[in-house]
Amino acid sequence: MSRFWSNTVRSLTPYVPGEQPKLDNLVKLNTNENPYGPSLRVIEAIRAATGDGLRLYPDPNADRLKAAIADNFGIAPQQVFVGNGSDEVLALTFLALLKHDKPILFPDITYSFYPVYCALFDIDYSTVALNDAFEIEVADYRQSNGGIIFPNPNAPTGCLLGLDAIERLLKNHPDSVVVVDEAYIDFGGPYEKIGAIPLIAKYPNLLVVQTLSKSRALAGLRVGFATGHAGLIEALERVKNSFNSYPLDRLAQAGAIAAFEDRDYFEKTRAAVITSRETMVSGLHGLGFEVLPSGANFIFARHPQHDAAALAARLRERSIIVRHFKLPRIEQFLRITVGTDAQCEVLVGVLREIAAG
Amino acid sequence: MSRFWSNTVRSLTPYVPGEQPKLDNLVKLNTNENPYGPSLRVIEAIRAATGDGLRLYPDPNADRLKAAIADNFGIAPQQVFVGNGSDEVLALTFLALLKHDKPILFPDITYSFYPVYCALFDIDYSTVALNDAFEIEVADYRQSNGGIIFPNPNAPTGCLLGLDAIERLLKNHPDSVVVVDEAYIDFGGPYEKIGAIPLIAKYPNLLVVQTLSKSRALAGLRVGFATGHAGLIEALERVKNSFNSYPLDRLAQAGAIAAFEDRDYFEKTRAAVITSRETMVSGLHGLGFEVLPSGANFIFARHPQHDAAALAARLRERSIIVRHFKLPRIEQFLRITVGTDAQCEVLVGVLREIAAG
Repeated sequence: MSRFWSNTVRSLTPYVPGEQPKLDNLVKLNTNENPYGPSLRVIEAIRAATGDGLRLYPDPNADRLKAAIADNFGIAPQQVFVGNGSDEVLALTFLALLKHDKPILFPDITYSFYPVYCALFDIDYSTVALNDAFEIEVADYRQSNGGIIFPNPNAPTGCLLGLDAIERLLKNHPDSVVVVDEAYIDFGGPYEKIGAIPLIAKYPNLLVVQTLSKSRALAGLRVGFATGHAGLIEALERVKNSFNSYPLDRLAQAGAIAAFEDRDYFEKTRAAVITSRETMVSGLHGLGFEVLPSGANFIFARHPQHDAAALAARLRERSIIVRHFKLPRIEQFLRITVGTDAQCEVLVGVLREIAAG
Repeated sequence: MSRFWSNTVRSLTPYVPGEQPKLDNLVKLNTNENPYGPSLRVIEAIRAATGDGLRLYPDPNADRLKAAIADNFGIAPQQVFVGNGSDEVLALTFLALLKHDKPILFPDITYSFYPVYCALFDIDYSTVALNDAFEIEVADYRQSNGGIIFPNPNAPTGCLLGLDAIERLLKNHPDSVVVVDEAYIDFGGPYEKIGAIPLIAKYPNLLVVQTLSKSRALAGLRVGFATGHAGLIEALERVKNSFNSYPLDRLAQAGAIAAFEDRDYFEKTRAAVITSRETMVSGLHGLGFEVLPSGANFIFARHPQHDAAALAARLRERSIIVRHFKLPRIEQFLRITVGTDAQCEVLVGVLREIAAG
């Protein structure tokens, strides 16, 4: 620690992302990346934007990208905010919309970046326990709060909260901003049945955050967005324009626009991931694993006879990386990303050998 | 204003970047972009990185890029921090290293984002007046402070502060972090004579910030960096990892590495800009303009008989965009980016017509 550090820095315990190993030949099932590459239209759009034009600043407002997102969801561009990955969008959301006098609420088991943002921006929080089935219970949030945030599907459990429950939550808390972090929503089923963006027209306190890292296979490009009432979006724009005018580079904007234009590829790949997940879950059930119902591109599973940390270590020896969280209530679970069918088969096969050994 | 906004948002007056017009055929001399495109090696490196690999997260620590920067300046990778443009690097610097009990100091005429960061992170500041020649006077900073920051060359004046003066400042303020924002330094002359990075070995309180947007012609890619004692860099890493794990996408990392590898192109283009600047300054002197001595890729000029705002408007009518700041002491100046020789000729020619009219 250096005497030059601000008090903010001194108090931080930074988020630790999943490992990005520099080795090849690993079956990498630890950071929920898409097993399929991005659409060829994305590749073409980025290559077309790679030229002399890079000498010029990007559009600070990313108007064309906002229009593409608005068009995709049938909303207005003024209801869309974009950022450098959904992590940046979430960070600015905490500062702009979740920093109030009362503590904000989120599940006890959830995305572990949330408490880190709270520490960074000096925001109080309370956690609300998931029920015994590891589900969010909307009624348990009935307490005074400065805002509510949760992922849907939740991370790292993968459990999906129904739209009816989300609407109940919004009605219970008309004076709080409710943030639904839909990083994994596209793996939960048809968006019209489970997605919260259609509710933004009705609830001015709802912000829905998404990312292109998962279902659109662009983790390497860093694009996330939020949708909500124009008043909420304006708050995000003001904070963004006080932090970094140009968070999205020219290539990210070009690629992200193309990703929304290639609807067919999006539908095909997310369906493939969902099918692979169901096969993988069957395989794991066959080995005696308990698997939480997943609406995501990962599953959360435990085995009654095998220690999770030991399993993760054994998998690692066999060049398969999964994620293990040494945290209360979930230390016996592994979070396993859904890979290609071939990768899922390798995983189940190796786990069978380990379980038999 | 919405009742859901945090107090932070309510108090903000966001930074307004220079216009990024969507029209073609403009002579765009308003945002200090490089008139030449990036190195062909940058283009090739980005195209090579544009493929299936985009489905994977980038290296959160950008190790290869840090190594390339360290190698370029003969320092250690632990002395390098990278971010999403120097604006993000500066924002994190304010939060990590300039937020203390005492007000920070910066010039009265300087990069107008500095007070915006202060408002965002609730940091007190005092400004120190430039002297009558619009230069920084190191002696005037001899007051109790929580840190000091200034661009060198300063913006929007373009004036360069000598290394001896910077070293005096560092010696006068051993207990303050001194941030030298070298966005434009490569247009000031040979780095060994004017650049502050060699001083980081001697002064643990010095942070030097640079960008690839100007001299490396990559404004569209968003890459900036800071160098300093490992203790200062660690503070930035901790804040970064509490804000956004992956601020630099795969393409930005690949392009930035290649930019440092093509030293010849860098030297050739920055020399060309310096030559064009001197020609442009001669032309403006010939029209009666007073031009501050510039070490940047822009000049700051005023005409004793012509109102600056009126001149900017007349140039705009002729499809030439320059920057005018409606601010005390400098409202009669125009900031004009150095373009290609052809663009500079057009500018001087049109100004001649206006002055004659």
